[in-house]
Order: sequence, then C-alpha cells, then structure tokens
Amino acid sequence: MVRTADRFRESGIRMLTGHCVEQIDPAAQKVTGSGPGRPFQIPYDRLLIATGAAPIRPQKPGFDLPGVVVVKTLEDARAVKTYLQQKAVRKALIIGMGYVAMEMTEALRFRHVDVAMVKPGARLLPWLDARLADRVREELTAHQVELHTGFSVDRIEHGGDRLQVIGTDGQKLAVDMVIVAVGVRPNSALAAQAGLELGPAQSIAVDRWMCTSDRLIYAAGDCADAYHVVTGKKAWIPLALRANRSGWAVADHLCGRPVSLQGVAGTGVFRLFELEVARTGLIAIEAERAGFEPAAVTITARSRGHAQSGSAQVLAHLIGDKRSGRLLGAQVVGREGAALRINAAAVALHAGMTVEQFSQCDLAYAPPFGPTWDPLLVAANQLLKKLG
Amino acid sequence: MVRTADRFRESGIRMLTGHCVEQIDPAAQKVTGSGPGRPFQIPYDRLLIATGAAPIRPQKPGFDLPGVVVVKTLEDARAVKTYLQQKAVRKALIIGMGYVAMEMTEALRFRHVDVAMVKPGARLLPWLDARLADRVREELTAHQVELHTGFSVDRIEHGGDRLQVIGTDGQKLAVDMVIVAVGVRPNSALAAQAGLELGPAQSIAVDRWMCTSDRLIYAAGDCADAYHVVTGKKAWIPLALRANRSGWAVADHLCGRPVSLQGVAGTGVFRLFELEVARTGLIAIEAERAGFEPAAVTITARSRGHAQSGSAQVLAHLIGDKRSGRLLGAQVVGREGAALRINAAAVALHAGMTVEQFSQCDLAYAPPFGPTWDPLLVAANQLLKKLG
Repeated sequence: MVRTADRFRESGIRMLTGHCVEQIDPAAQKVTGSGPGRPFQIPYDRLLIATGAAPIRPQKPGFDLPGVVVVKTLEDARAVKTYLQQKAVRKALIIGMGYVAMEMTEALRFRHVDVAMVKPGARLLPWLDARLADRVREELTAHQVELHTGFSVDRIEHGGDRLQVIGTDGQKLAVDMVIVAVGVRPNSALAAQAGLELGPAQSIAVDRWMCTSDRLIYAAGDCADAYHVVTGKKAWIPLALRANRSGWAVADHLCGRPVSLQGVAGTGVFRLFELEVARTGLIAIEAERAGFEPAAVTITARSRGHAQSGSAQVLAHLIGDKRSGRLLGAQVVGREGAALRINAAAVALHAGMTVEQFSQCDLAYAPPFGPTWDPLLVAANQLLKKLG
Repeated sequence: MVRTADRFRESGIRMLTGHCVEQIDPAAQKVTGSGPGRPFQIPYDRLLIATGAAPIRPQKPGFDLPGVVVVKTLEDARAVKTYLQQKAVRKALIIGMGYVAMEMTEALRFRHVDVAMVKPGARLLPWLDARLADRVREELTAHQVELHTGFSVDRIEHGGDRLQVIGTDGQKLAVDMVIVAVGVRPNSALAAQAGLELGPAQSIAVDRWMCTSDRLIYAAGDCADAYHVVTGKKAWIPLALRANRSGWAVADHLCGRPVSLQGVAGTGVFRLFELEVARTGLIAIEAERAGFEPAAVTITARSRGHAQSGSAQVLAHLIGDKRSGRLLGAQVVGREGAALRINAAAVALHAGMTVEQFSQCDLAYAPPFGPTWDPLLVAANQLLKKLG
C-alpha cells in the first residue's frame, strides 16, 4: 500500500484515505462527506463509483457474537487465522454453500479443523447439474465435511465455551466458530441516493462503456452490473475478472479510447480439495426465463487418453437451445482439467456459436491431456442428437 | 481386434483383412487387388479411402539396418521396446525434432536411455516463437538430451556393436539405436492413380463433406486434406481429432445427414517431461503467405494466482492481423495449464474473433488455476497495443 500511495502521489493523484463520501450531488457535480475531523466536499468533472460489494450479514440474533465472522478483506482473513489459533478451534460451522463457503471449507480442513456446512435450500449447488453436484457432495463427504442442507439458521447463542447455532426447526449445532458466507450485495446506496438507475440485485446499472444513467458518472467493479453475452440482458455476477476489466474500460474511456465491453458469460470456477468445479453461461432455469428452449446432456469422460496413468473422471454438462441450436452453457467437474476446459465453452458463448459449431472446434489432443475428443466435444456431439 | 471383427461380422460387414487394393477404377466403380492367394475385385456404390499416413523413411544408406526404426503402429512401439531390452540400449539417436521425436525422447529418458536428437535445420521447433522454443530447449537439456541442430544425416553404418550415424559434414555419432521421426506423408498413391485431385503435400483433396473430386469417392483420416479455418485455404495437418471427425462425417453423409466440416485450426499439443507445449492457428510466416499483416507478442505470466503455491511460469504468444484486427494464432508453453489453455484460442479462431473480442472473453478465474487475467488475455491486451 505504501508503494502504491507513493506512486499515486508522484503522479499528482490525491489519495484521501479516511474520507467517507456520504452524498453524491449529480446536479452540482460534487461529492460531500466526512474526513478526519471535518466534513469535505470535492467537485468533479467525471466521477467513478468503485464501491464494490459487501458480504451479507443476516440481521438475526447472535450474528454479532465474537467468533461469528464474514470473509471479504485481507483483514477478515487474518482475523480468522488469529481466532483459529487463539481459541484452538476444533470445529467451525459455515453458513452458506457457495464459492466462498467451499473455499473456506477447504482452507479449514487443510488446517485439520472439523467443518459443518448449512444452507436453507435442499440442493447443494443448485446451479450445478445434479450429477455434477453429487460429485461435489462426494468430495465433501470424503473429506469429512458435515452437510446440513435444509438447515435455516434462526439464531446463534453462547453455549459454554462454544457457539450454539440453532435452526428454525430447533436443531442445534455446537461449534467453536461460525463463518457466514451467504453471498454479497453491491454497495450501491450512494448511487441510489444520487438517483442513479439500478440494475439486477440493486447493482448500479451501467452501459457498455461503464457509464451510469448520469453520463458524467461511471461505475465499475463488483458494485456495477453487466450485459450477459448469452441473454443480452443485464446480470449482476460480481467476479474478479469483470471487476478488473471494467476498471480498465473506465480508464480507457476517460483517456479517449472508448472500449465497449461485450459483457460476461458467467464463467465461474473453484477448487474443492482435489476437485475442480467450473461453469459458464446459463443453467436450464435461466435459459427458460430468457426465452430459450433448453436441452441438456451430462456425459462422463476421462481427463487423459486411454492407457495414460493418472487419468481421472471428468463430468461434462452442456446445454443448448432447441430452436436456434445455440450453445447456452457448460459445466465441468473433475479431478484435473475441469477448470481450464471451461474456457473453450466460454469463448464459444461470446462468439454466439451453435452447439454444432462448437462440436467442430479443433481442440487440443495429446494423450496426457485428454481423450481424442475433448469431454466438452463428446458432450456437444451428444447434445446435437437432442437438438435434432 | 477380435471383438471389433465380431461386431462387424454381426452387422453384416465384410472385413477383408489380407486384401491389398492395388487399383481404383472410378469409371467402372470397382476396386481391384490381391487377396490371400488370388486377385479380387469389388464393385462399389460409394468408396471411402482411409489409407492414413506413413512415416517417412529416407532413402539413404543404412536406414534399413536393424535398430533403425520408425514409429507409427502399435507393432512399431512393441518392436522398439523389445529392441531396447534385447540389446540393452544405452543410447538412442532420434532423427527429427517434431511431436513424435519429442514424445519418443521423453519415453526413452523415462527408461534411462541416453538420447541425442538431430535435425538439418538450425532452429528447434521453428513453428514455435523463439522464446517459447528456448524454453523447450531448456527442458531438453535439463533432462540431459543432446541436441544437434544443423546436423544432416548422410548415412548410417555398422560400427562394432553400435550404429554410426554420419553427418553430411563428416561428424559421427555412435549410438545403439536410431529412431527416424522426420514426419509422415499421406498414403495417396491409389487416389492419385485413380485421377483424384490432390491437395497440399500430396494429400487427397476433399470438400467439406469429405468427398473427393469423384463424388462417389470419399477420403477421410490422415490421407485427406482440410480447410484451415483461419486462411480458408487447404491445409494438410494430419492429427487424430480431425482424422476421427472426418470419418464420422463420411458416415453421417452416407446416412443422409450431410454434416459440413468447418476444418482445422491447426491445434497441436505435446508434453515434454514437465513441460506442456501447445499451438493453434498460424505462425507469422504462414500468416504473411496467407496475405495477412501479422503482429505478435510474447508475454510471461504465472499458471496460478499470486501467493498460490505450485505456480509456474507460463509463456504465451499471440499473433493478430494489423489490417483486420483478427486473431490469427496462439502458442502457450509452461509446466501446467498450457495444453488446455490453448483451446480457448482455438475456439476464437473458429469464430473468426478479433484480438479485441478475444481479449474481452470471460475466462475462468480462481487462484489455483490462474491469475485474474488468464495469460492468453494478458497477451491479447498487449497485442491490442501493437494492432493500434
């Protein structure tokens, strides 16, 4: 941080840390807020809102107890580490079963902490095809992770040295620590107060140049929405690459090089112990909502050519539109090669390829890296039969 | 083989092994040849030529000596294994430095056989960007492989118990075995005799439905040419996926489902010890010949996010067209994630994407699998600056 601050100072950029903007006045083109000890106001020609997203902390009893944490910042992570050591945590409960929940589960198990996970819904990773989600469940149970789907947290209480997590059905779980990973929401309150148009999930609506509904105000990063390249409609999928890219786009735009961003394909990936889990594009229910008529297949293949040692099962799921033949989404789960394989499908979505066009792509083959037909191509060939 | 033969028989398919077709008579729609003990002739409504490719064995003195082998079939590989054991081979010479030469080098070093490689040209892997080729050279020398570029073999002689490989400049290399891996050529003699049109490298010219210049005769597999999706022109790149896919296309066509094949992107990949080497699309000289005005960049990145253990260097090379902005080719070399990363670029080539469109693709990011910007995206961002 010091070096970044130095570079900013050298460039003539004022970094006003400790200054909290409380209001944007688009008509007067200024922001007002409180600095160290006194209020401030700053006029602007152009304004960028890059307020990010914040983890959701439910307003329920006990979520403010010591040992009940959210993970967002480096400081959060350090606090978790300190707490683990100081309290000699033997068991942690993770509320939520999304990306962050999975990554925290892995991190805790690596430290030999017992982990239980809870979520209100019945399905683990409902955005994942059922067979792929089953594979994730196997990986979790193989690593002694307790899964409590259908568990809705009512409150958290002190219980001796431990924390008692109490479900709405009265079920109790005794743990030493609770990590709340139930998603994030965009920090868009300032934008909303300023009358800027909001998008999905109350994110800040931006056009392809990252301009908000006020053309002098940009928004970029996890606070802003994006066009989805498959549906053409707005989506809020706060992930690092888009956040980063949208910041660059604002800089380009300000510097007179208007880069129009295509948008997101919804590509996401995480590692869970030995497993790689990847998705891009739409799932069936999203496809239906967007007006497509989806058909899907799930196939099993191998990560390497036959007779290659170290080969592992790869599950590939592909979804296409019956009417247009277009590829709508892909998912891959496996011990190796799942994460990077998804990129081929992501590019196909950006290109608006049909399943047939994708099925014909000249993907890499050598025995150490896959079968002659890449698992995604096998899935495409099978999906073609369903699309007719 | 027995089971396949049984299944063919059950399906009413006659498998005439031991029958060598010597002539195709397109006018009379029949093939003639010699079977076990007697000639045969078979009429056809449609004919498929799937004669593959054969390794080149130079017509030079000594290339027929025992211990001088080519590798193409399973039998060839078994013969190599037997020879290695029976002769207690300590050192092998590999003539050639292409895919097969690299794979054989790896296989022999795994068996603790010393390996020297020779080729007439000055450059190792001339189709690879110089910095990426240097990385391959490092990997070879790290595994004690002797490299003799600029070595043109004049002849091979017996030299005591060993083989003497003698260069045109008189240089001698004494080894126990010689593997000839100087490329393959299409088995197109029958097709040429029948008057069928030939394509690049004397391969059999086919259209997008795998029909030859005689519309009753198909050709598929390594004997046939293909359209290159970047140049739109004919190319002969005999690799497994295309060979396999073209066979399917013939079957589809015969069964009344005419599948038109887009063609090849020239995607190729091999592993060399710990290194993955991948390419797709054109190299600069091919791009120039095809009428493009190429610009290229080479960048170094990491295979995983910062602070992730196990991260390795990834070299990515990208080439685009200055006039159209189009992506023309990509190469990736690294210890992990190079082989599968190339697929994203291959799909982009099929889609005819510009470098800018590719640079905007929503590729997967999680720290175990790459930096926020995938190495290929970093390269695309840099290449955009050169394309102006």
